[in-house]
Amino acid sequence: MEFDPESLKFDENGLIPCIAQDVDTREVLMMAWMNAASVARTLETGLVTYWSRSRQALWIKGETSGHVQTLADLRLDCDADCLLALVRQRGPACHTNRRSCFYTALRDGDAVELMVPEEV
Amino acid sequence: MEFDPESLKFDENGLIPCIAQDVDTREVLMMAWMNAASVARTLETGLVTYWSRSRQALWIKGETSGHVQTLADLRLDCDADCLLALVRQRGPACHTNRRSCFYTALRDGDAVELMVPEEV
Repeated sequence: MEFDPESLKFDENGLIPCIAQDVDTREVLMMAWMNAASVARTLETGLVTYWSRSRQALWIKGETSGHVQTLADLRLDCDADCLLALVRQRGPACHTNRRSCFYTALRDGDAVELMVPEEV
Repeated sequence: MEFDPESLKFDENGLIPCIAQDVDTREVLMMAWMNAASVARTLETGLVTYWSRSRQALWIKGETSGHVQTLADLRLDCDADCLLALVRQRGPACHTNRRSCFYTALRDGDAVELMVPEEV
């Protein structure tokens, strides 16, 4: 069935959340936002491209750091209001140089750090 | 370090996205929203509890269908504006009775269905 990008449900800011998951380890790496142009660019270039809400600009993940995400598969959910990008991650995904942004667990009322920054 | 629920960054509607991932298979199952009360209830009860935006009410996942999510670990990301719940999923996670909500892939301009509904 032909995919119509218009069928995606963007929020009132024209954005849709995109979860990045490592296609090999299946680790969830990060969540960021895309607009229609990001989705199109990601599919065209094979490099995961978000929308930076702080900079209000297209954000090719890793463009500065080199920690790019190469797209393996892009999926959408049943409501078409969330995306899942299966990616090959070069270097750490998190800007803190940790492998994943989800490095803090909530356990028994405490915040527990699960990962240390990688040497890059 | 003691966790302060106030340190989470909720959006202008008082909500934070929460990704549910199967703790065993590492499959990403769904994404839904939580408010502060949902986060507290999830941690207290061990049953993943979202905020239903359509019903504007707490939503104990699986309360009606029986397809509950038992919390194994709750994590937050580096910006404290997204949660990752590692869960044990009873039955399918998706309301379409598919294992995951992310059953559609975008490949070469087409929407490809990757999973069929389970018998429940």
